[in-house]
Amino acid sequence: MSRFFSGKYDNLAPYVPGEQPRDRKYIKLNTNESPFPPSPGVVAAAGNEAYQSNLYSDPECTSIREALAAFYGVKKEQVIATNGSDEVLNFAFMAFGDEKSPLLFPDITYGFYPVFAELNHIPYDVAPLREDFTVDVADYLGNDHTIVIANPNAPTGLALPLSDIETILRANPDRVVVVDEAYVDFGGESAVALVDRYDNLLVTGTFSKSRSMAGARLGFGIGNAELMADLNRLRYSTNPYNVNRMTMEAGAAAIREHDYYAKNIQTIIQNREYAKEKLEALGFRVTDSKTNFLFAKTDAMDGEALYLALKDRGILVRHFTSTRIRDWNRITVGTAGQMDALVDAVRDILKGEPV
Amino acid sequence: MSRFFSGKYDNLAPYVPGEQPRDRKYIKLNTNESPFPPSPGVVAAAGNEAYQSNLYSDPECTSIREALAAFYGVKKEQVIATNGSDEVLNFAFMAFGDEKSPLLFPDITYGFYPVFAELNHIPYDVAPLREDFTVDVADYLGNDHTIVIANPNAPTGLALPLSDIETILRANPDRVVVVDEAYVDFGGESAVALVDRYDNLLVTGTFSKSRSMAGARLGFGIGNAELMADLNRLRYSTNPYNVNRMTMEAGAAAIREHDYYAKNIQTIIQNREYAKEKLEALGFRVTDSKTNFLFAKTDAMDGEALYLALKDRGILVRHFTSTRIRDWNRITVGTAGQMDALVDAVRDILKGEPV
Repeated sequence: MSRFFSGKYDNLAPYVPGEQPRDRKYIKLNTNESPFPPSPGVVAAAGNEAYQSNLYSDPECTSIREALAAFYGVKKEQVIATNGSDEVLNFAFMAFGDEKSPLLFPDITYGFYPVFAELNHIPYDVAPLREDFTVDVADYLGNDHTIVIANPNAPTGLALPLSDIETILRANPDRVVVVDEAYVDFGGESAVALVDRYDNLLVTGTFSKSRSMAGARLGFGIGNAELMADLNRLRYSTNPYNVNRMTMEAGAAAIREHDYYAKNIQTIIQNREYAKEKLEALGFRVTDSKTNFLFAKTDAMDGEALYLALKDRGILVRHFTSTRIRDWNRITVGTAGQMDALVDAVRDILKGEPV
Repeated sequence: MSRFFSGKYDNLAPYVPGEQPRDRKYIKLNTNESPFPPSPGVVAAAGNEAYQSNLYSDPECTSIREALAAFYGVKKEQVIATNGSDEVLNFAFMAFGDEKSPLLFPDITYGFYPVFAELNHIPYDVAPLREDFTVDVADYLGNDHTIVIANPNAPTGLALPLSDIETILRANPDRVVVVDEAYVDFGGESAVALVDRYDNLLVTGTFSKSRSMAGARLGFGIGNAELMADLNRLRYSTNPYNVNRMTMEAGAAAIREHDYYAKNIQTIIQNREYAKEKLEALGFRVTDSKTNFLFAKTDAMDGEALYLALKDRGILVRHFTSTRIRDWNRITVGTAGQMDALVDAVRDILKGEPV
């Protein structure tokens, strides 16, 4: 830190993204990327737009908002596009969280939530998940917090039924409920169906997972037009050209080529259930994930030791050090071959085989 | 605004980007884009990266930082890459501005500065430019403000010599001086040469103007490694994957193909001087621009009326409504053909010719 850095960030502990070591080639199961490349139209759109990149991107993000609106059955005015879903989440925290409306989210969830709160000096409370990592809906019925729920949740992988989301929405008519649906396409129920009935609902989504565009950076928010106006007020005060041309048209192409991604999603779900079964057969406890990752632990060894042993064998998974989950690892679901390699490596590690 | 929007942004007036009307085809001289497409390697790199965009971009932005470091003769640790230079400016305001270090910038300058200040609740003062729009360096010698100077300045186009920047740096050893060099390649003197001597210097730059990549969104900051650590602390608390893969490698390609851009810059400078002379011959007062735009006024008609008359004729320029500059227009320098079309249209307007 320099001697010039403002004291207002003294308590800020930045988010730590998944490691990207360059010392060797790894099977990368640590950042929940898709193992499948984007569809042909995505690549073509990016190249075409690159050629025109001397001109600013459309600050209204018309093409991608129209594509998303048509896909999700909402109006263009109910959609915002952002530089990854981290950006729309940050705007949402800024717009709807303050002293009068502190944030509330689970103790175990996406690690960026407390960082956004600290960054923006927004007070927040956490509601502990139950022992089995399920959300206790009763914790969210107070109508005095701006609520943030990842559904399905990360890193637990567990999903709430839409009826529970609706219960939370009804109990908090004067507060915004943010439902972060980064992983919804792998088995969750989307709350987008509720945006016309609840003016306090903001659904966020991303192209990083089911749409194979993590490296292109495209996220979005869906809610009523007034919430979008709030978020746009912050977007136009931060970075009006937040989404670049290549990503914008690549995203629109991904929506057009939905069938390709739908097929990949089915493959990932199959591979998830396959790997889950194999890990359970090896004595692991594995949550009922509705995402593109597994959350697993074994009593046979420490979570960090397993993570390190897998890394030794060229497989990266994500290990978190916070107390309640340090015995667990989050494992991205990749191709069938990658899942076999993972299971084989785990088996060898448990047997004590040398690398 | 929704009923949920936090009162903390009541005074926030978002930035208004240049209009992008879609009703007809315009000669677009209103957002200071390059009239030239990016170089072939940029397009190739974007396509190649799009194919791999299922994987997150490098959060350390290694490739583009290495390219920039080599180009500017600094170390990689002295460089940060951002989603346009708006992002690095926002981070700089956040990092170095607060009650103890209020911001100071000219009254007439990039219109985003007061917006970033309001967004982040940072107090700021403005120093009026002299009547001829030049900066009075004496206004910046107090050592109690975090200083932000666009050099060359926008929309005036005027540049300060490096000796003046150095005077400001020396007079403010306990405050950061941000030098926004968005337009420096068109005739300014870069302060990058001073970063090893002044630990309070942060230079910001963009690929949007001289490098024909406005729509790709790539900005950067150069300063000492400690300042970079401060900015990265905020970047990792906001959007660690802020620069997408396509833009990152496109930017590195643009640096490799510098000769192409150097030639375009020379053309733009020639076209600028050509158009300036023509406008002066028509009675305009035109500032001594060191940028890719002209700032011009005529006593023959009101600034807004001229802007509207040009728009009627299919030419977009940028008109600002603030008191001191509402008689002026900012005109992006395009191709020679575009400059001829501009001058012809202005001549017709002044003569009262019908559209």
